[in-house]
Amino acid sequence: MTDDTPDYTRHNERMKRVQAARERMQARRTLERGLLIVHTGNGKGKSSSAFGMVVRSLGWGMKVGIVQYVKGKWETGERNFFEANPDLVTYEVMGEGFTWDTQDRALDIAAARAAWERSKQLILDPAYDFVVLDELNIVMRDDTLPADEVIAFLKDRPLTTHICITGRSAKPELLELADLVTEFAEVKHPFKAGFKAQKGVEY
Amino acid sequence: MTDDTPDYTRHNERMKRVQAARERMQARRTLERGLLIVHTGNGKGKSSSAFGMVVRSLGWGMKVGIVQYVKGKWETGERNFFEANPDLVTYEVMGEGFTWDTQDRALDIAAARAAWERSKQLILDPAYDFVVLDELNIVMRDDTLPADEVIAFLKDRPLTTHICITGRSAKPELLELADLVTEFAEVKHPFKAGFKAQKGVEY
Repeated sequence: MTDDTPDYTRHNERMKRVQAARERMQARRTLERGLLIVHTGNGKGKSSSAFGMVVRSLGWGMKVGIVQYVKGKWETGERNFFEANPDLVTYEVMGEGFTWDTQDRALDIAAARAAWERSKQLILDPAYDFVVLDELNIVMRDDTLPADEVIAFLKDRPLTTHICITGRSAKPELLELADLVTEFAEVKHPFKAGFKAQKGVEY
Repeated sequence: MTDDTPDYTRHNERMKRVQAARERMQARRTLERGLLIVHTGNGKGKSSSAFGMVVRSLGWGMKVGIVQYVKGKWETGERNFFEANPDLVTYEVMGEGFTWDTQDRALDIAAARAAWERSKQLILDPAYDFVVLDELNIVMRDDTLPADEVIAFLKDRPLTTHICITGRSAKPELLELADLVTEFAEVKHPFKAGFKAQKGVEY
């Protein structure tokens, strides 16, 4: 070590103690099973974070199913990607669009019902390791699908599959039941600065 | 309509007005350029949300680069997926691991420097539409890489590329400069309930 090189000995010694502490902490974490994951809050990133876990799962050879409850009928980046790679993911676009676009509550209810029936199939199928229910929180919030029915099913779910439910305004009973909850809090949103929704970012 | 079918006329009419209001709002959003996006906070999902935007970008045929500053040296789902599909993404694993695992500050500094030089290349290369700098916030927080140098470069960045920077403890100057900031707030984390890190979810 020359005179010019800073001496990091103390830092490096301290890191040994940090590592030992972390190893003790990790040794206490022994549980392993399918997690119920909820992404909620008014910030951006709830669905994209679910799609990122899809990428991780695919990297481990896990089988993935995605049901989109609201978005996805129109062209999106995720739709283009997953539909171009049907061998990777079972991808079901079952929403009819936003309620203000359908302007048809009977259609919204029928679409949510069909999406939920398909979601249950995927969750109950032992072949699937990870199931994303994108925007399910929205149809529960709007009573387009009865939340108590969803919660009752999830209480009895098979514990071999990870389930990730996205959408703002998650029901408190769902948060109660979940193993992992992240609230996506908006700090700065480009829409408010006059930006359009842009490819790759918002869709 | 039979007697049993609920009458949704009022709901459907109201949605027409909601749609019109949303269209007026969207008409005011006219800006379009590469966004500086920051994912911070102590909640789970910051990196996976960046990878989800990668999926979206790929679905639009956009060219994507990813530099991983800390994580990724060990086997992860994203690493397996991106390395198995090198035609999709330029994927650079340039971190040496957590500081408590390297226990070598000089190595940490050299790794962060190399990762930053590569990051600048990708951002300055007009071929790239979306560049993810995963965990860059961490090396700035730890002064492993000088934050002022990063901020100065980002102030002058080309506005044709979306850049997404992840990691807890983002610098206030970075949040100031950013177009989109989401804080990922931990509500419930499986580690605290004794769960191990699990494939597809945490890595």
